[in-house]
Amino acid sequence: MRLARISTPSGPRHVADDGADWVVVDDVFARPLVRTDERYPQAGAQLLAPVEPRVVLGMAHNSGPADRERPPQAFMKSARTVVGPHDRVQLDPDGGEVRVEGELTLVIRKECRNISPAQFADVVLGWTIGNDVTAVDQVPLDDKFTQAKNGDGFTPIGPWIETDLDPSAVTIEVEVDGECVATSSSANLAWDVVEQLVYLTSHLTLGPGDIVLTGSPGTAAAVVPGSRSTITLAGIGTLHNTVV
Amino acid sequence: MRLARISTPSGPRHVADDGADWVVVDDVFARPLVRTDERYPQAGAQLLAPVEPRVVLGMAHNSGPADRERPPQAFMKSARTVVGPHDRVQLDPDGGEVRVEGELTLVIRKECRNISPAQFADVVLGWTIGNDVTAVDQVPLDDKFTQAKNGDGFTPIGPWIETDLDPSAVTIEVEVDGECVATSSSANLAWDVVEQLVYLTSHLTLGPGDIVLTGSPGTAAAVVPGSRSTITLAGIGTLHNTVV
Repeated sequence: MRLARISTPSGPRHVADDGADWVVVDDVFARPLVRTDERYPQAGAQLLAPVEPRVVLGMAHNSGPADRERPPQAFMKSARTVVGPHDRVQLDPDGGEVRVEGELTLVIRKECRNISPAQFADVVLGWTIGNDVTAVDQVPLDDKFTQAKNGDGFTPIGPWIETDLDPSAVTIEVEVDGECVATSSSANLAWDVVEQLVYLTSHLTLGPGDIVLTGSPGTAAAVVPGSRSTITLAGIGTLHNTVV
Repeated sequence: MRLARISTPSGPRHVADDGADWVVVDDVFARPLVRTDERYPQAGAQLLAPVEPRVVLGMAHNSGPADRERPPQAFMKSARTVVGPHDRVQLDPDGGEVRVEGELTLVIRKECRNISPAQFADVVLGWTIGNDVTAVDQVPLDDKFTQAKNGDGFTPIGPWIETDLDPSAVTIEVEVDGECVATSSSANLAWDVVEQLVYLTSHLTLGPGDIVLTGSPGTAAAVVPGSRSTITLAGIGTLHNTVV
């Protein structure tokens, strides 16, 4: 099922897919989901970032077998960097080279700490597309990644959350200006999504709406002002953003 | 003036100091501040973390002249680590040694990016006490500090925000179990608070309620379960927390 967040006359609302309509839900993190009577046509609906996370984590060095020889590691991005479909990624004039990174992105459903693999399905709401925009010239200047990862609009997510998805081998395609520049799969991640969440929650508490950008398995591409970034994840959809 | 956040029968409220009472304010980030008719006696009021930040930044290696020879650097903490006065810092059984760090903590008043030193006073709401709790044995394992800085309750702040304070030489005292274990001053910070905010906002946007833990100028002290941490900043007050 698709869960989204749309703009309505009474403000942003979480909605569930109901064929031609989006139906407003009471609490997007509840199970079972309670649908209300409020509905909006999908055609023309303005999709927003599907959640407003308090915590945004990204996995560092998480591509391929060699990265599995190192322990997993994560960095934090500012919640203020999160934007939605069609929102703008804003480059700093003197920030150096910037890359988009297409990533399978995990959305947390409920507060969790020290989870076991068996608890994974209960604490995960679903999956969206994340773009972990990175000012790569800042990485050697700041090993904490604070300078590289937190420009305005540097974490586009969306267009919605897919709750029914096998995350183990999701095809990821990155296009810049309509040209395919990278193709990979979540199967190429060094540490898989269950291992990631077991690792992360062994060190910190996550809660409803928090997200984990699960890593970029060769899905990065350079962009410049004016570039159009298009990231497609099989089984989820396509996330479009413009770089300015 | 002191600004706080207290628990009331109708939920948490931002309040301003009015002698014996706390007076509820309309919008704690507004200038001028608009007071309402709702007031509560200060005696017995339950003080909460004075803000609920979306972004929590800490300054790395920011003590003394030698650190000034390196560029400033910041790390991010999870907003979920923020707790208030008398709340508990929860240690992980296998997290290794943990230290409290008493720090002058800057509270942002309005959205800001790329500020100049002249804009500093306009974008800062005031100052509170921050405890940048750190699992020091995790630092060599994770240079991003994600493992070291994000345990439950690892960012106590409070007891209130002082808006009228010269931040240049604030005396910082750290007591553990009633014994003074560190005394220093914000004057010993390598990069001062104005330089910090100019640096930080050159890389990311901050907004109302966000906080910057400005660095630990020799104000760290080891704690164990059962320890009582007491951090006093001259001109602000005292922040008490218990380690469990």
